[in-house]
Amino acid sequence: MTKPEPDYQEMLSFVGRQLQPNAIRKLTALLGRGDVISLAAGAPSHETFPIGELADIAAQVIGKRGRFALQYGPTRGQNQLVEYVAAIMRGRGIESASPSNIVMTTGSQQGLDLISRVIIDPGDIALVELPSYVGGTIALHNARAELVGVRQDDGGIVIGDLLEKIEMARSQGRRVKCLYTIPNFQNPSGVTLASPRRRELVAIADEHDLLLIEDDAYYELYFAGERERFDTLAALRPSRVVYLSSFSKVLAPGLRTAWLCAPEEIASKVELAKEGADLSSSVLDQAIVAEAVGSGLIERRLPQIREFYRIRCRAMLEALERSAPSGSSWTSPLGGFFILMKLAPGADATGMLPDAIEEGVAYVPGQPFFVDRSGANTLRLAFSKESPELIREGIERLCRVLSK
Amino acid sequence: MTKPEPDYQEMLSFVGRQLQPNAIRKLTALLGRGDVISLAAGAPSHETFPIGELADIAAQVIGKRGRFALQYGPTRGQNQLVEYVAAIMRGRGIESASPSNIVMTTGSQQGLDLISRVIIDPGDIALVELPSYVGGTIALHNARAELVGVRQDDGGIVIGDLLEKIEMARSQGRRVKCLYTIPNFQNPSGVTLASPRRRELVAIADEHDLLLIEDDAYYELYFAGERERFDTLAALRPSRVVYLSSFSKVLAPGLRTAWLCAPEEIASKVELAKEGADLSSSVLDQAIVAEAVGSGLIERRLPQIREFYRIRCRAMLEALERSAPSGSSWTSPLGGFFILMKLAPGADATGMLPDAIEEGVAYVPGQPFFVDRSGANTLRLAFSKESPELIREGIERLCRVLSK
Repeated sequence: MTKPEPDYQEMLSFVGRQLQPNAIRKLTALLGRGDVISLAAGAPSHETFPIGELADIAAQVIGKRGRFALQYGPTRGQNQLVEYVAAIMRGRGIESASPSNIVMTTGSQQGLDLISRVIIDPGDIALVELPSYVGGTIALHNARAELVGVRQDDGGIVIGDLLEKIEMARSQGRRVKCLYTIPNFQNPSGVTLASPRRRELVAIADEHDLLLIEDDAYYELYFAGERERFDTLAALRPSRVVYLSSFSKVLAPGLRTAWLCAPEEIASKVELAKEGADLSSSVLDQAIVAEAVGSGLIERRLPQIREFYRIRCRAMLEALERSAPSGSSWTSPLGGFFILMKLAPGADATGMLPDAIEEGVAYVPGQPFFVDRSGANTLRLAFSKESPELIREGIERLCRVLSK
Repeated sequence: MTKPEPDYQEMLSFVGRQLQPNAIRKLTALLGRGDVISLAAGAPSHETFPIGELADIAAQVIGKRGRFALQYGPTRGQNQLVEYVAAIMRGRGIESASPSNIVMTTGSQQGLDLISRVIIDPGDIALVELPSYVGGTIALHNARAELVGVRQDDGGIVIGDLLEKIEMARSQGRRVKCLYTIPNFQNPSGVTLASPRRRELVAIADEHDLLLIEDDAYYELYFAGERERFDTLAALRPSRVVYLSSFSKVLAPGLRTAWLCAPEEIASKVELAKEGADLSSSVLDQAIVAEAVGSGLIERRLPQIREFYRIRCRAMLEALERSAPSGSSWTSPLGGFFILMKLAPGADATGMLPDAIEEGVAYVPGQPFFVDRSGANTLRLAFSKESPELIREGIERLCRVLSK
């Protein structure tokens, strides 16, 4: 059997729950052909990786400090990197951030897993966005939370719906433990939480004693150069927020280096959970990332990375405006990797996927991102992987299938 | 506050539960002085790391295949490495081992965590050795298993005691789900499970429907060059064994690259759990390790690594024979990193630790390794870190304290 690249791992695991094994085998074979344009990959483009610089850094880090970089390291993370990350967090508005608030994790996925294990008691309600990142909802689900969806519109979480869901839980005598949110350029919707709603959200967290899990993997990937970014929730209310971010999108995800910033007491519990989960993340990866931060390599390359994705997002939006069938709509991201497309009611984005792949374009059906099983007529389109030309061609192929 | 090196993380987290904060602060300060001989570190010596070779490999892997080595990778592990590991497992007697049995993990600690999460239902009984590796017992405990200890003697698990514990559980209508064992050069005891007991153990697993979790991190580190090694439990009964091993002790632990080999159905569940836990382990680390395996670097260096630890073990044993107080005894390992020392009944190895560190030698008190809270008169002595000269000096310092 042809092994599809990891790009398609997410898509295939989603549709594997809905399509027949025969259909999956056919898809896998088609994907193996190599001429499918992928709007499915939720990954940064390898063209953004500073390969030469990282090769040099890795050789130096091992050659000069291999004694430490190849040895076991502290569970919380390599000391120098933890210091740098505390400084990054102060730059994101958490003025009091110090190493005692930081735990380095094996990708943000581990942060989501650990915080879920630490805070969730079986049966607690965890509120999540509709739609939301599946890695986040799975981590909460694995910790035996009951997931309740909160509606989003183009400004992110709908505050009225949030209050309704909290009220509903309370009327049943249930505990709402947390809200999981991706305020910037959300995966999968591309939506950004509006600034006034951020203030409302932390006020609601205060009133109802909620913990906010703020997943900010795309923080640096905004498109509007001059725009002042919205405050992070963590900056607005550090005592109520567990903030997660990552070097995956601004450096390289294969290095699996991300972090969690939380109130000291929670960070200590996460550290303890991490000790049992993997002792520590890759020490070599952390040493390489520390050097990439310390030397200014990451900071220096951010403008070109933002431009890289902005151009691709623009290409996708223009192609959609040209070719999308009437009755469909889509989001207009201010950053990140994703556009969420919504087809006419009754459309089945999962059922259409085999036709689309036959036509030479892949996407991720939206439904698995909705914990209430809605969203069957939505699809996630990633502009992070392909060139602007292929994105345009991919959207045209897609729209031909949608128009059938 | 001085930060003690990660070497002491384990020791301090153990004694932190028993000693007063003041005593801990004093210990930490003493350890920071830098003249303490560490028989506490459970880590391989950095002198065994092939630093120059790994620097070259890392630069090459990134330079030539950075597009893949820096990108997200498959949850199960980098394809080439998974193939190599399946071959390694065939070499360890699991003739049918294929990639479908393998999941690469972020150190064996992650394998222990994932298998515990996959197989344990809250309240299941997990049998563990007395003493046992704390990382293993913590993983089982975190999955809400009830831990029951089984006695060991110089030949490993005492079969009669094992049967008694199974019978006791059964008479209470409880389910014994698994037995966690480190058959080779156990951490912390240094003991090796005798060959006939291995056969008895798999027969008992068959009869009582137990899963065996075989933690074989030290497999390659045997001292007797010509000795035919005992069969792995996995070789004797692949259908009942989840086998864990690692590149940490034969290459470098900072690369955090280990694996789990299990029946296909269990491996698939572990893969799913891993997807939620961290998506994948470091892809760069895996690519480096794959190159180190494929080029023969690891295999070629094994004889000198075995000799490195054999010499240090010998130095420790000789020093103990010379200086240990009467009434004490210790194990004689055939490999690995550790000797377990047993003092006269009533001795308190935790209480003695501050005096020992004052005298300039650190060890890990044995009690935390015993889930039944016995073992207060035992201590784990690691010969993996220091030179033979310092090991001799360290044992002399230790014996001076013990003789007081």
